[in-house]
Amino acid sequence: MNFSSDNAAGAHPKIVEALVRAAAAGPFPAYGADPITSNVEKRLSEIFERETAVFLVATGTAANALALSALTPPWGGVLCAAEAHVEIDECGAVEAISGARVMPVEAPDGRLTRAALEARVAPIRIGDQHHVQPAAVSITQATEAGTVYAPHQVGAVGDFCRDHGLHLHMDGARFANALVSIGCSPAELTWKAGVDVLSFGATKNGALAAEAVVFFKPELARDFLYRRKRAGHLFSKMRFLSAQLETYLEDGLWLANARHANALATRLAYGLVDISGIELEYPVEANELFVRLPAKVADALFAAGFHFYPWGAPPPDSETPGLFRFVTAFDSDPGAVDALIATARTAAAPAEAVEIAMADAAPVPAGDGNEAIAEIA
Amino acid sequence: MNFSSDNAAGAHPKIVEALVRAAAAGPFPAYGADPITSNVEKRLSEIFERETAVFLVATGTAANALALSALTPPWGGVLCAAEAHVEIDECGAVEAISGARVMPVEAPDGRLTRAALEARVAPIRIGDQHHVQPAAVSITQATEAGTVYAPHQVGAVGDFCRDHGLHLHMDGARFANALVSIGCSPAELTWKAGVDVLSFGATKNGALAAEAVVFFKPELARDFLYRRKRAGHLFSKMRFLSAQLETYLEDGLWLANARHANALATRLAYGLVDISGIELEYPVEANELFVRLPAKVADALFAAGFHFYPWGAPPPDSETPGLFRFVTAFDSDPGAVDALIATARTAAAPAEAVEIAMADAAPVPAGDGNEAIAEIA
Amino acid sequence: MNFSSDNAAGAHPKIVEALVRAAAAGPFPAYGADPITSNVEKRLSEIFERETAVFLVATGTAANALALSALTPPWGGVLCAAEAHVEIDECGAVEAISGARVMPVEAPDGRLTRAALEARVAPIRIGDQHHVQPAAVSITQATEAGTVYAPHQVGAVGDFCRDHGLHLHMDGARFANALVSIGCSPAELTWKAGVDVLSFGATKNGALAAEAVVFFKPELARDFLYRRKRAGHLFSKMRFLSAQLETYLEDGLWLANARHANALATRLAYGLVDISGIELEYPVEANELFVRLPAKVADALFAAGFHFYPWGAPPPDSETPGLFRFVTAFDSDPGAVDALIATARTAAAPAEAVEIAMADAAPVPAGDGNEAIAEIA
Amino acid sequence: MNFSSDNAAGAHPKIVEALVRAAAAGPFPAYGADPITSNVEKRLSEIFERETAVFLVATGTAANALALSALTPPWGGVLCAAEAHVEIDECGAVEAISGARVMPVEAPDGRLTRAALEARVAPIRIGDQHHVQPAAVSITQATEAGTVYAPHQVGAVGDFCRDHGLHLHMDGARFANALVSIGCSPAELTWKAGVDVLSFGATKNGALAAEAVVFFKPELARDFLYRRKRAGHLFSKMRFLSAQLETYLEDGLWLANARHANALATRLAYGLVDISGIELEYPVEANELFVRLPAKVADALFAAGFHFYPWGAPPPDSETPGLFRFVTAFDSDPGAVDALIATARTAAAPAEAVEIAMADAAPVPAGDGNEAIAEIA
Repeated sequence: MNFSSDNAAGAHPKIVEALVRAAAAGPFPAYGADPITSNVEKRLSEIFERETAVFLVATGTAANALALSALTPPWGGVLCAAEAHVEIDECGAVEAISGARVMPVEAPDGRLTRAALEARVAPIRIGDQHHVQPAAVSITQATEAGTVYAPHQVGAVGDFCRDHGLHLHMDGARFANALVSIGCSPAELTWKAGVDVLSFGATKNGALAAEAVVFFKPELARDFLYRRKRAGHLFSKMRFLSAQLETYLEDGLWLANARHANALATRLAYGLVDISGIELEYPVEANELFVRLPAKVADALFAAGFHFYPWGAPPPDSETPGLFRFVTAFDSDPGAVDALIATARTAAAPAEAVEIAMADAAPVPAGDGNEAIAEIA
Repeated sequence: MNFSSDNAAGAHPKIVEALVRAAAAGPFPAYGADPITSNVEKRLSEIFERETAVFLVATGTAANALALSALTPPWGGVLCAAEAHVEIDECGAVEAISGARVMPVEAPDGRLTRAALEARVAPIRIGDQHHVQPAAVSITQATEAGTVYAPHQVGAVGDFCRDHGLHLHMDGARFANALVSIGCSPAELTWKAGVDVLSFGATKNGALAAEAVVFFKPELARDFLYRRKRAGHLFSKMRFLSAQLETYLEDGLWLANARHANALATRLAYGLVDISGIELEYPVEANELFVRLPAKVADALFAAGFHFYPWGAPPPDSETPGLFRFVTAFDSDPGAVDALIATARTAAAPAEAVEIAMADAAPVPAGDGNEAIAEIA
Repeated sequence: MNFSSDNAAGAHPKIVEALVRAAAAGPFPAYGADPITSNVEKRLSEIFERETAVFLVATGTAANALALSALTPPWGGVLCAAEAHVEIDECGAVEAISGARVMPVEAPDGRLTRAALEARVAPIRIGDQHHVQPAAVSITQATEAGTVYAPHQVGAVGDFCRDHGLHLHMDGARFANALVSIGCSPAELTWKAGVDVLSFGATKNGALAAEAVVFFKPELARDFLYRRKRAGHLFSKMRFLSAQLETYLEDGLWLANARHANALATRLAYGLVDISGIELEYPVEANELFVRLPAKVADALFAAGFHFYPWGAPPPDSETPGLFRFVTAFDSDPGAVDALIATARTAAAPAEAVEIAMADAAPVPAGDGNEAIAEIA
Repeated sequence: MNFSSDNAAGAHPKIVEALVRAAAAGPFPAYGADPITSNVEKRLSEIFERETAVFLVATGTAANALALSALTPPWGGVLCAAEAHVEIDECGAVEAISGARVMPVEAPDGRLTRAALEARVAPIRIGDQHHVQPAAVSITQATEAGTVYAPHQVGAVGDFCRDHGLHLHMDGARFANALVSIGCSPAELTWKAGVDVLSFGATKNGALAAEAVVFFKPELARDFLYRRKRAGHLFSKMRFLSAQLETYLEDGLWLANARHANALATRLAYGLVDISGIELEYPVEANELFVRLPAKVADALFAAGFHFYPWGAPPPDSETPGLFRFVTAFDSDPGAVDALIATARTAAAPAEAVEIAMADAAPVPAGDGNEAIAEIA
């Protein structure tokens, strides 16, 4: 009963079958000169409705740091949300691979706004040799708060970048979850809104280990082959990255996986907010929930074998609800979701109150961008 | 009919089956805290007969550069053969990841000797701030010439390192091929001969993409977790690296695969050297052959659909035989080997001599090792 | 009439005379093996009352970045005030030279507090490969706000470092100004309070270009020779750095220069705060003043030829006083200070009030220190 | 009696006087926005007869590494002579500052030839992601063998660079010595022969510590301000670098200094080659001599207090003359040169042979490019 991370999941059977087939295929030229890789490149250009330059790597950290290294000189700065993966969870990979500085910007609900970006760069003297020069913005889609940038929100950041001469990177570790939540086209969510390069994630959504760095302006990718190789990220048997992505993109598997994960996150969110004393920290727009739980509820869930993480600073006292993160994945079990809700309800309520509480279930109020929840409701 | 590279091969069915199983296994903690990874760590310690610190990565370049980064400060030098992968084929990954300088040393048959190493460091003033300070030696096993270091040859380099206060790294991209060729124990070929850290390759020998960095002195690995993560080489779903290696090490699959590749290399070598005008450039001791072929033979082989590479500088004229590389793999087909020999024989010989030549063909000796082939030839 | 920066000043005549003598001295071994350099090393050990390892460089940025590179691995973090030179004014030199991440911490009056440091590191999981690991703290003395850490305030940061296993660096670009302001011993202000390494600045206080990196734990300096050389910061004719510092430290020149600069800053502060509508932003404890000036006063000063900088964000409207920085130096002219005060007074006051205001002027107190100025104002 | 290095010398009195004046000059804007720096920039453009972009730094290593960082991406290679300062004497500064790889090429008399360069790059596959890509050539003028590239020899390297799409850097630590030796114009020796950027050295030739990075294609310098600052090489009181160079370039001081050093090197060469058993290793074309001395001569010189260095590998036995380096400087004393010659003569000859030997003095045979010697002769 895993709600700890979409990284704790296995891989989708169809994607593994693709590896079985690729393993038995005839000899292929190494390093990406194989037909499966070509096909993935072609598919991604189709999906994004424009010419792209595509480079496959195995980890999201590699995708992000390498992509950003193509967008910034070593004396550049990469603006991102204060909670962004590139800032918090990659042990300085951006600095290590690009030399640049990560410049965190407060983003209360996970989404960078133009105003916050403007405030961050205002004191920086552009062209002054003493100052690290802003070079790129990196936004995370879906965000680290489980929210999703709508196209116009990406576009606001894109406008900021255009006006300041910066490049725009999207860390799409959960791009599919964001996309199906918003319901727009991949193009609308990326280059049409100003994104220059996308870390297109598949690992969290059913692949074993496969990400694509997708450049919407191929000229930015001119040196990328060297960057990838030099960082040790060029696969010799590239077919095994591309076979994952080929199947991931086939027959909408990537979208179906994401819909499943999102739907269960929504189901979980509905179930939990309906329980007295439990509150959502952020709108649930993709496959992550950040939830305030009374200690007795959290304890009961852990005791029942549910895996999930406490998040952020611990609460000041045992009376204050703590913050916890729940993540659903392509393979999450609806039964486990329901069991979790039931366990939480029992733990939260005085025995006699359970039935009443269920009757009270109020609809989740519509809010900005909470499409995924609204859809199911 | 691939003889171009062991990277052009697919993957062994058992290893892919392991992925199928791992994909369907229950949720596992991410980033290596799973039971398969633990098992691989344990198995490698058993195989090498001592406590080791093991870190899995997906590419050989990552394994080499990260391993070396733990052995040298940025102002250090890494001595290696002039043809070493870290010098020639990794686009400066050692420099990129460790900051150190690669210091190539001539190694005519691929093997570094103590004398050559001594000559290389002699003019360097140790402790002089102006000079890059030798910090490590990296040897390739099997070598880039298709030869193999015997334990006493590794030991000679190990003695050099000990006497000069350097660390010793082994790039074991083809470690299994070397091991079965020599017929000693893994321990004898590594730490007992002075090796501090091994890039233990599996990709070229039947895995999809899996290498292990094996530290024989765990204290050298103290910071390795940060190095790996920061370089983008930490897999979230680590199970998919470890499942490959678990099966690779199970029931001697790694040794069987290497024996197969080596045996076919030997078979090919026997067949070719028996043909007039064809000569081996180096002894064939693992799964690579470097062969001088008359132009008409090379042309005939290419025309017949065999894939292999011209190697090094082109010959000065069409009369001089050119150098070519042939590589066998875990899945090479004996029939293709025989067909290649037959095609070469036909192309080499005057028409009337073909039948005689075929009758002369010496039987391929049974066995895994092929130490003496050049001498026999 | 320069109040723009202590970098705009020339150099003290005695220090230049030292260069004249050094230039004519007999041949000396290059790269620091000369008697003047030895003498500087000895003098600094005497001044700091303990064995030190001393390395001379020409710029403060080099001193800071090289010093910090000895205190942090590339995956480490360097905590510093949000306004610190290493964060704001060095174009990412710390990152470039050490690989580490600069982690700014809010420090409203320029001084880092233990509480702010604790809050900054609280969410970082120590030993977790995903997180940049705090490795060092860098404090600036005097601070970027013109304030000074008293020994107990340095000690509070030192305690934090000790308790968290971090190293402590002091950016002493204005160390002399801080020292004479506090009136304690150099040892009390540094290693006795937990400082591991000091960037001991001389350039801003009368030298041409000379800084010393002073390690109080010589074992931390083991590799520093290589770091300095490799960064291009080893002077061949080292005598010309050491001659500056030898004279700087001789007969208390460094302290006298700093006292002069501080005294004039105090004099200026007294004069300005006495004027209606002018306020100090921070206590004036060294040789920098941050002053809120009505627009008409600032305009009058600029018109009269005084050089100084607007600071931080511009005021929202012309009614709100703007923030400006004034810096005094070893060679500042008391007459210029008085002229500045007079000009400001005239500009600030209604015409009829000028004479009265001048009669009110409080006498500038004698003395070097200026600890209490803000309170007096 | 220093013949150990031009780095062991002091500084020219006129240059120090310039510092005295600059120190007392009024306040100047920091970081290079001062009139002296502007004047140096203007003078260098005049001297080189074209628009240049000029950046001052204090050390030759900084000049070289920063200049090269503007010419190569991190995955680039910098071809240079095997004995070049950037390869041997800078502790990996090029790698540290640019990320690129130094690629040494044999240059028996110190000069790179087109043939040697072609041979070095021949096996490198241009555009292949596995290979470090040649990006620049760095030549040293005068060379590390004390020889000088004539314009046509620079041009041959320039042609190689042009044909291969590489940039050309000249390490002119002893540029003045080379220039007066050749007797051509600064333009002819640099950009007219294909040089893109020059490390214009002054330190070895009379300055205290001052070098100029001179870009002949200003567009290559676009980011140089950031590179310099970020490496800690931006002087705040820039006037003190520029004052040195201003005087250095004034009234031909730089040429006069170099002529003096070269003339004494020639005088020393004539004196020594005239002694039986003493031989020059290379033509003496600037201010360095590499001389084979019998052990008894070397011993006698050391005993008499002459300072100079043994060079390269020690001789196999005491009968074989060893190699030694002698360097003259702007302030070398002709009397010391004559005393050295006399001491060597006495030590070399049997007592009765001394007078005869002096009578035998033969003219130095004309050799390729030995202009400086020929001129004086």
